[in-house]
Amino acid sequence: MIEYKEWRHVFKLDPDKNINDEDLERICESGTDAVIVGGTLRVSFDNTIDLLARIRRFSVPCILEVSNVEAVVPGFDFYFVPLVLNAGNEYATLHHHTEGLKQYGSLVKWSEVAVEGYIIFNPQSEVAKLTGAKIPKDVEDVKALARLADQMLKLPIVYIEYSGAYGDPSWVQSVRSVIEQAHLFYGGGIKDGSQAAEMAKWADTVIVGNIIYEDIEQALKTVHSVKSLT
Amino acid sequence: MIEYKEWRHVFKLDPDKNINDEDLERICESGTDAVIVGGTLRVSFDNTIDLLARIRRFSVPCILEVSNVEAVVPGFDFYFVPLVLNAGNEYATLHHHTEGLKQYGSLVKWSEVAVEGYIIFNPQSEVAKLTGAKIPKDVEDVKALARLADQMLKLPIVYIEYSGAYGDPSWVQSVRSVIEQAHLFYGGGIKDGSQAAEMAKWADTVIVGNIIYEDIEQALKTVHSVKSLT
Repeated sequence: MIEYKEWRHVFKLDPDKNINDEDLERICESGTDAVIVGGTLRVSFDNTIDLLARIRRFSVPCILEVSNVEAVVPGFDFYFVPLVLNAGNEYATLHHHTEGLKQYGSLVKWSEVAVEGYIIFNPQSEVAKLTGAKIPKDVEDVKALARLADQMLKLPIVYIEYSGAYGDPSWVQSVRSVIEQAHLFYGGGIKDGSQAAEMAKWADTVIVGNIIYEDIEQALKTVHSVKSLT
Repeated sequence: MIEYKEWRHVFKLDPDKNINDEDLERICESGTDAVIVGGTLRVSFDNTIDLLARIRRFSVPCILEVSNVEAVVPGFDFYFVPLVLNAGNEYATLHHHTEGLKQYGSLVKWSEVAVEGYIIFNPQSEVAKLTGAKIPKDVEDVKALARLADQMLKLPIVYIEYSGAYGDPSWVQSVRSVIEQAHLFYGGGIKDGSQAAEMAKWADTVIVGNIIYEDIEQALKTVHSVKSLT
């Protein structure tokens, strides 16, 4: 059983990006709490199962963040299903989720699935463009979206997604201030240990992604920076 | 505290429709479990509060189904917030919910609010047109939408909305068959006691609406038909 509520630090690996065996081993053996497999574009069954097979050589928990129905691969420890709360186009409809359930609904082990209430903040990110995201303009927008996920929909996870840009810690703090029950993920633009530690002040779990592919040493340092916080 | 999970029969009154005092008294004193105030078009603060004041003369629980932010009236016993699972236009986005939370988010007593996962079945209904609903084509569509509400989103209520047309009991049975935790509402086109009893075989709560305005005697008979089921 995956206890994501106890995670403080997670690495996110993108099936569409290349990582050599040595770097992958260092990531998996870094002491991080889990590895999430997920991406926005060009995520397929094949590149997802390839990455799963390579991560499975290590004991770290391995979770799939489902980005499209074609790339649902069995054998992960847990599955996150994003629900983009501020999508503005057809990704705002529940059509994709419904289609997925049409295919897999009777097979899913729901004890291994959690819905993430995604709030997209970076208008330049691929996911913002894909989903036509309506970016929050002020702190009242931010709080309303957090309440939507946490109190109205009672989702188990709120995911602050800055994807590709380091976020505004004061907005993360604002989300934290209104959340009553959900677990809070922060992801986006973390490039070193101090940024990871800063976001870990407000987020329950900090997710480190792109820097893995740009500067593996800095990426690895984020584990200790977060884990050494009291 | 409202225990909607114990309801078997509910009347729904539309603020946009006229009902005289005598008929209103008969509805409220009928033995129904609750009266829901809700409609699709021309629901305003004024016509909602007028209806609330008239219903409040009686002891029946009175619940507001929030159809738009402008018509949120304090003083109801409980609030249902619809989330249309098969909407196809801007009503599919969570924009309206977010705007409502921007205005009222910090004031809401969440113990008095439940989200209804609405599935719209009648393409001719006003609500289907308003929300651009993608009507389920077959029983697999129906089950997928029920699983979306019940298992993926873990909403407390699934609402089968036939609004204006009597539904297919076999589809209601299909929804029943996949629901694991949600409370099941059925509403739409019930014109007499036998139809109410038929839907009450599968739905936890049967909601009787339009017939109130067309044939009050038949409407009143639905209470006994449902309540006398074992």
